[in-house]
Amino acid sequence: MAMMRASLLVAPGCLEIRDIPIPTLRPGDVLVRIEQVGLCGSDVHFFDHGRVGSLVVEEPLILGHEAAGVIVSVGEGVDPTRVGERVAIEPQRHCRECSYCLDGRYNLCEQMEFASAPPVHGAFAEYLAVPAMFAHPIPDAMTFEQAALAEPLSVGLAAVRKARVTERRVLVAGGGPIGVLTAAAARAHGAREVVLTDPIATRRAHARALGATTAVGPEELEANTGAGFEVFVDTSGVPAAIDAGLHALRPGADAVLVGMGHDRIELDLFRVQSHELHLHGLFRYVRTWPTAIDLIARGVVATDPLVSDRTDLAGLPEAMRRNGDPEVMKILVNPQK
Amino acid sequence: MAMMRASLLVAPGCLEIRDIPIPTLRPGDVLVRIEQVGLCGSDVHFFDHGRVGSLVVEEPLILGHEAAGVIVSVGEGVDPTRVGERVAIEPQRHCRECSYCLDGRYNLCEQMEFASAPPVHGAFAEYLAVPAMFAHPIPDAMTFEQAALAEPLSVGLAAVRKARVTERRVLVAGGGPIGVLTAAAARAHGAREVVLTDPIATRRAHARALGATTAVGPEELEANTGAGFEVFVDTSGVPAAIDAGLHALRPGADAVLVGMGHDRIELDLFRVQSHELHLHGLFRYVRTWPTAIDLIARGVVATDPLVSDRTDLAGLPEAMRRNGDPEVMKILVNPQK
Amino acid sequence: MAMMRASLLVAPGCLEIRDIPIPTLRPGDVLVRIEQVGLCGSDVHFFDHGRVGSLVVEEPLILGHEAAGVIVSVGEGVDPTRVGERVAIEPQRHCRECSYCLDGRYNLCEQMEFASAPPVHGAFAEYLAVPAMFAHPIPDAMTFEQAALAEPLSVGLAAVRKARVTERRVLVAGGGPIGVLTAAAARAHGAREVVLTDPIATRRAHARALGATTAVGPEELEANTGAGFEVFVDTSGVPAAIDAGLHALRPGADAVLVGMGHDRIELDLFRVQSHELHLHGLFRYVRTWPTAIDLIARGVVATDPLVSDRTDLAGLPEAMRRNGDPEVMKILVNPQK
Amino acid sequence: MAMMRASLLVAPGCLEIRDIPIPTLRPGDVLVRIEQVGLCGSDVHFFDHGRVGSLVVEEPLILGHEAAGVIVSVGEGVDPTRVGERVAIEPQRHCRECSYCLDGRYNLCEQMEFASAPPVHGAFAEYLAVPAMFAHPIPDAMTFEQAALAEPLSVGLAAVRKARVTERRVLVAGGGPIGVLTAAAARAHGAREVVLTDPIATRRAHARALGATTAVGPEELEANTGAGFEVFVDTSGVPAAIDAGLHALRPGADAVLVGMGHDRIELDLFRVQSHELHLHGLFRYVRTWPTAIDLIARGVVATDPLVSDRTDLAGLPEAMRRNGDPEVMKILVNPQK
Repeated sequence: MAMMRASLLVAPGCLEIRDIPIPTLRPGDVLVRIEQVGLCGSDVHFFDHGRVGSLVVEEPLILGHEAAGVIVSVGEGVDPTRVGERVAIEPQRHCRECSYCLDGRYNLCEQMEFASAPPVHGAFAEYLAVPAMFAHPIPDAMTFEQAALAEPLSVGLAAVRKARVTERRVLVAGGGPIGVLTAAAARAHGAREVVLTDPIATRRAHARALGATTAVGPEELEANTGAGFEVFVDTSGVPAAIDAGLHALRPGADAVLVGMGHDRIELDLFRVQSHELHLHGLFRYVRTWPTAIDLIARGVVATDPLVSDRTDLAGLPEAMRRNGDPEVMKILVNPQK
Repeated sequence: MAMMRASLLVAPGCLEIRDIPIPTLRPGDVLVRIEQVGLCGSDVHFFDHGRVGSLVVEEPLILGHEAAGVIVSVGEGVDPTRVGERVAIEPQRHCRECSYCLDGRYNLCEQMEFASAPPVHGAFAEYLAVPAMFAHPIPDAMTFEQAALAEPLSVGLAAVRKARVTERRVLVAGGGPIGVLTAAAARAHGAREVVLTDPIATRRAHARALGATTAVGPEELEANTGAGFEVFVDTSGVPAAIDAGLHALRPGADAVLVGMGHDRIELDLFRVQSHELHLHGLFRYVRTWPTAIDLIARGVVATDPLVSDRTDLAGLPEAMRRNGDPEVMKILVNPQK
Repeated sequence: MAMMRASLLVAPGCLEIRDIPIPTLRPGDVLVRIEQVGLCGSDVHFFDHGRVGSLVVEEPLILGHEAAGVIVSVGEGVDPTRVGERVAIEPQRHCRECSYCLDGRYNLCEQMEFASAPPVHGAFAEYLAVPAMFAHPIPDAMTFEQAALAEPLSVGLAAVRKARVTERRVLVAGGGPIGVLTAAAARAHGAREVVLTDPIATRRAHARALGATTAVGPEELEANTGAGFEVFVDTSGVPAAIDAGLHALRPGADAVLVGMGHDRIELDLFRVQSHELHLHGLFRYVRTWPTAIDLIARGVVATDPLVSDRTDLAGLPEAMRRNGDPEVMKILVNPQK
Repeated sequence: MAMMRASLLVAPGCLEIRDIPIPTLRPGDVLVRIEQVGLCGSDVHFFDHGRVGSLVVEEPLILGHEAAGVIVSVGEGVDPTRVGERVAIEPQRHCRECSYCLDGRYNLCEQMEFASAPPVHGAFAEYLAVPAMFAHPIPDAMTFEQAALAEPLSVGLAAVRKARVTERRVLVAGGGPIGVLTAAAARAHGAREVVLTDPIATRRAHARALGATTAVGPEELEANTGAGFEVFVDTSGVPAAIDAGLHALRPGADAVLVGMGHDRIELDLFRVQSHELHLHGLFRYVRTWPTAIDLIARGVVATDPLVSDRTDLAGLPEAMRRNGDPEVMKILVNPQK
């Protein structure tokens, strides 16, 4: 049986590199040799706590779901000429049969297997098996690093789709990778203006570089609210930022709550009612990769400046610990090194 | 100067009947002799506290905004043959020039004058001046009592429009007039199933009579949740009911928060995110009267059983105090008696 | 190899009953013993001409796609307790992988295999293999005849979803099964008024029985147009009816063009532009069966009066010829007799 | 009575410069001194034929509706500090009371008075009175020529809103001012790709300069269709171009028919049905000026290259005749010279 190297979370705070069998392909799958994987805050949360909400790591788990690589073999029913294709990976595997899958909301699939969400292995390994339709081809000129960034950009795209940003004034709270890519996605969707708030100056600089019209500290929000925003996307997960964002909205506005971290928050219900606000939860993404790849390929969204550091599987524990540093944007892991 | 009798709120808990000038008409207005006015919970809140949120009664104020009557004169530019027309009153006066008015969301008008919201007088008086377009004609066979009920039904219609109820399973919390009329509106819009919760048995009976598939006590909600609701409309304003309702929703569902009373509530943000829920505030209504009148006229929504009691201006203080009784649904006031 | 009786179209105008192998099940399929199948106009068109548009019958073909029956066996991966379940059949088999399937528009699937569209066999046979998710369970009290009618009702539901009929005035042209079921679906979705036009009195009577507010001859349309319709659904396919319908619409209205028969028609483009009309093509249906079954089960749509006649496989050729008679609504075929 | 110079259409093909009274202001109006007016194809059609469709010029009429200028006085109820404000003019005056006005679709107002549509005077004159809310302020750095171009850009914006272009592949037929500005608006709304077809090379060059990804001759459309477009906007009004455009669409796509000229066209109904296409008429615009001004101000849409020529009222007849030259894009008229 062919083996591969993988980094497994064996206990909170403890990653081990092991040789494990290369995944077997189901019908319709392709096997991807992973070239680059971005480290996500949720990976770090699993590393630190062994769980996210009700998702608990009970068996050793491979984390990582922002991945790109090369197709090295194909499963039953898949066009064999795809071997050698360079791809960005959408880390979902839906049942294709439940009401959500039939409705085009496969992100809500009742039987979803999401790479890196226990008990489903992720991409911090030499290989990953994914449904062929979710191994999205990338242009020759696109790097694997850029292709890995299609995942956080997908979150931004999913957020701005829900928020209906076109022609509207948009506020984004939080200048981490999701926040700045949401700002970039909002501009790509024709937002009239994008104001991003973050307490860290370097994050604000990233936001401006990726398309935010203005990036200010949270304490400067009020001075930049003007007649009110028509859209608010929170990527910070900070209750005070959510509250401030909702109060910066005009009547009839939309808010998308992306940032996680606090399970229960206090909500100004009277504001929501008297201003007829619309609050949207967001759970991953649907059909975003083709657009994300296109935006990166055309240079509309410049992801390269977001890559703070590069490492390999051996460097992953240190990367996990360093990820909380606000100067760090995106750490990329090359599992082949 | 022609005078009329009116009931004025002169201090919290204190209503006085006074003779005051009949309102003068602005261009485009009609003068309506008020025949019936429903008593609303917000009227009672003003009566009790002299304020609702940031709206404070600073000058003696005529309450009442669920009104019907007969046009007795017309202002400049209005077809004089409308005199004598029986009408249901939409109690709004928007500026027609701001971005909200131009967008078809005149309920959010920045200069809204809403009858009975201070400092704008309402309908507990012999006459009220309203824009001609908001004096909606009613069929001969419709009673003024039914026409007055077009206002709370409008709230229900506005809620179910936002909630997109057609073909879906709907949960309504709260069996007061708004709750049961929301249930009725949901059925009229083709909801697949409507479950209403209320602790009071008589309210549950009203809900069933007006179209709820099922009406149960809050403690029975879980047993009736099944695979989860696709829509939740809260009309109770009770934090526990809102929380229970959100937890009874399927992923991707919509919730409309109509019931007021608590300015700040605790929100299960993780639930909203992990289930990709959509929460909608609701602020009054837009273009609902023609449909509300049609539904009542065709008997699709039977409002008569909701009328608990009838009184006159002199009986208004007592009605205010009695309105909290859960057996009371809608008290109607005839200002001409 | 187990065999079954089936009616095969072997040449235009020529049906033959033959014994052929019972279909083999693919993974995820169920085998349904067909109890009732409705005869559709498109079946008759294939019978008469051997083709519909670019779809040509090149090998002997089993027609029929309005079917209901009982699950008699299940394929790999399907819950075996479903054997014995009474079901209505959605006659689609989509690829689940193309962009349309992922988008929730599987009716547009690039690899669709639609039962009875050449070269895919349909339901005029003792058995049919269908994807388990498209064998929709029906209540005990529902007859197979009613369950078969879920197919034409699905067309009506798909039409009224596109037309956004709720609270609006709707015109339906054509009083065949699709027309009257569209009228019924419009009422179930909360249309304010439904006017149906058909030259045949008995069809108008059916329309009224199923929920049309008014049913008149085409020459009476003008007298019933009033201030104009907000929705028009053509089920007639007659160019003059389409033209008349578009001219009966208010500015900003929606038209859904369901009726087939004329490939190219003359369109009053100036009317479409000056009235800002929206014209929608309709191709089959998506996720309509659960609602269709619910509406029939609750008696909201009464399909029984639409059944004009009943026959068996041997009677199918005669039924094909009789179907053009305007007094005939729906002929049902029992392949087990 | 103060007088002004104006160019009046007194008969087909015959414009006369006359001194006529400066328009009187209604309440809520402002008087604008017109600085620049673009010449539109519909102006030319009125000049040539004395009519467009059912709109007939029966009294001498001032044409022109693409206008910008300076507020010189204000009517009753308008903030007097607006005098001196530089504005782009939205040439609509709606009743604010009909169902369309209340619905936010004031372009469909039943009592619309549209500047330059008989019998309502337009902007080829020294002054025009318009509702204050439709005298849209422009930034200091914006020229009046740019501000006048906000009108044709508004048509493009209205088209791409209906077409839902964001993230989609868009085909535009026709490279006149509306066509190239539609292409520009599509890019501003985040279209993935915009292909424009026009037989004239200079128009294709303009299209590329304003943001079309590709601009080709109509005969090259097929080679550029790829897997099919998701949106088609016809601005040519040419039946063959409309037909070719509809056949270049993918299933489920949207088409917006902007180009006028042929009242009745032949439509491939079978294509519309089998591909489930959506055809949208477009009638002017709603709430587009703020966005149009913003896009021009930010340089997202560069209108300057579209100005082919400049003239004054005396030169208008010659401009009318020259407008048909395909090398001419937009002729601007300065009524103050």
